[in-house]
Amino acid sequence: MSRFSRLIRFIAADGKTYYGDAILPTGISDVSRVTKARVIEGGILSQGYKVTDQVLNVNKLLAPLAFKDAKTVRCLGLNYAQHAKESNMDIPKFPVLFYKPITSLSGPSDPIPIPKVAQGEPGLDYECELVVIIGKEARDVPESSALDYVLGYCAGNDMSHRDWQLKKGGGQWSLGKGFDGWAPIGPAIISPSIIPDPQKLRISTKVNGRTVQDSSTADMIFSVAKTVSFLSQGTTLLPGDILFTGTPQGVGMGRKPQYWLKDGDIVEVGIEGIGSITNKVTFERTKAHL
Amino acid sequence: MSRFSRLIRFIAADGKTYYGDAILPTGISDVSRVTKARVIEGGILSQGYKVTDQVLNVNKLLAPLAFKDAKTVRCLGLNYAQHAKESNMDIPKFPVLFYKPITSLSGPSDPIPIPKVAQGEPGLDYECELVVIIGKEARDVPESSALDYVLGYCAGNDMSHRDWQLKKGGGQWSLGKGFDGWAPIGPAIISPSIIPDPQKLRISTKVNGRTVQDSSTADMIFSVAKTVSFLSQGTTLLPGDILFTGTPQGVGMGRKPQYWLKDGDIVEVGIEGIGSITNKVTFERTKAHL
Repeated sequence: MSRFSRLIRFIAADGKTYYGDAILPTGISDVSRVTKARVIEGGILSQGYKVTDQVLNVNKLLAPLAFKDAKTVRCLGLNYAQHAKESNMDIPKFPVLFYKPITSLSGPSDPIPIPKVAQGEPGLDYECELVVIIGKEARDVPESSALDYVLGYCAGNDMSHRDWQLKKGGGQWSLGKGFDGWAPIGPAIISPSIIPDPQKLRISTKVNGRTVQDSSTADMIFSVAKTVSFLSQGTTLLPGDILFTGTPQGVGMGRKPQYWLKDGDIVEVGIEGIGSITNKVTFERTKAHL
Repeated sequence: MSRFSRLIRFIAADGKTYYGDAILPTGISDVSRVTKARVIEGGILSQGYKVTDQVLNVNKLLAPLAFKDAKTVRCLGLNYAQHAKESNMDIPKFPVLFYKPITSLSGPSDPIPIPKVAQGEPGLDYECELVVIIGKEARDVPESSALDYVLGYCAGNDMSHRDWQLKKGGGQWSLGKGFDGWAPIGPAIISPSIIPDPQKLRISTKVNGRTVQDSSTADMIFSVAKTVSFLSQGTTLLPGDILFTGTPQGVGMGRKPQYWLKDGDIVEVGIEGIGSITNKVTFERTKAHL
């Protein structure tokens, strides 16, 4: 049975939403520029899906995992050696884990809404991250087989508000990272058959076209395999679980002077062999109740 | 259309699982002693469910929210004034938020599995908590109407391993609180029509029959209404979201001398007007891969 190479979710010309396997023109490796895909039938989290011969035009790319298929969103902090250094933090001995709610997920070209509650103080920041999608139930798995549980990889932006994350959150990071739409992912879920080694990918962020993060997943402290194994100890990872694996150096908080995102900024996260997501920081105008 | 009073999930004599409205014998208020229930049809997170006239015997109570209906599990830390004091922490200015994965959910009489990774160091601790189930989508809601979004209340135990939570987790609490089955809830979801004021409920924990926590939800720093309103700012709360609202003083970590749970201990969490959950600490014997 055929397996996908680059899994996308998209709206076709008929206005309906499909899962599909991206068809890339010769010489194009960034899935964000895809125009056609083969329709996938059946649940992509089961082993029973099928890449069909039906080809459709791609009108708009969506988050590559449907909301109903997404389970728990885990994130690592301080997982790149150079980023730990710029944050003045010790290299952690174990992966530093926090969570985002599933409502933070959004697509590769969606705006990033900044709610009123996150507009008052400075601290809006980007974090380019390699994102891992779990494809099979994993509990107590060893590092040596951990990658067998990976459905694929995408790019993600772990949007953060440093004031809420570090000052007003009581030391717990989730509050300032969990607002609606603060975890855009995409443009596709790239199969491990395309990316057999996730530890040698160039990863970068551009803000309004200027490169602000530019590193390699080789700088990760805990590799994807180590992390999946570690997180599965005593905890069942489910198909549809999403794992942000930390960001390299160059975040706005670590720059001198510090550099914060503002309304209208365009943030592009790109990873070698995966493609890019491009999201516009968009301040909400509605009233809030704090 | 009739609404539930005490929503349970249970296995009936036919071996099948049902949602039901508990029928309590005269003089019994603890739902954990329920023997009969009226079957509920239709999704309990939609407004379209129906309490039918079909009465079934209750063979076993399950977690009152089905795994497929549960969305994000949020938890508050340091939300009781006396507990913040015993933890030597300042009273927080904003709710302190962390998460558990949905795989941590379990039922009112399920064992609490302690994986190998949490058996090595001392630090196994109980936390009795009032648990709020969200029933309607909530975004930017004011405190004055926040309770309108509550489906009901249950009792929960926010099981914690202090060594993983506070020392090995890099300062982030989720790691030491998120193992499989470390968030037992139940015995029922009690309608706000039965509990109009969640801020005056006696709440307690017994370990092997000895009372170790005994307080009132009146000691909460952020009330349920304040918390739901706060968490909804910029973040959409979904039907099926679960909120642990913090624990009062008396946890093992705060006692002198400190007091840790051990294999075989029976932990009972009870809340006035809701009932109790009773779970046995059960060390796993399987090998792990750390």
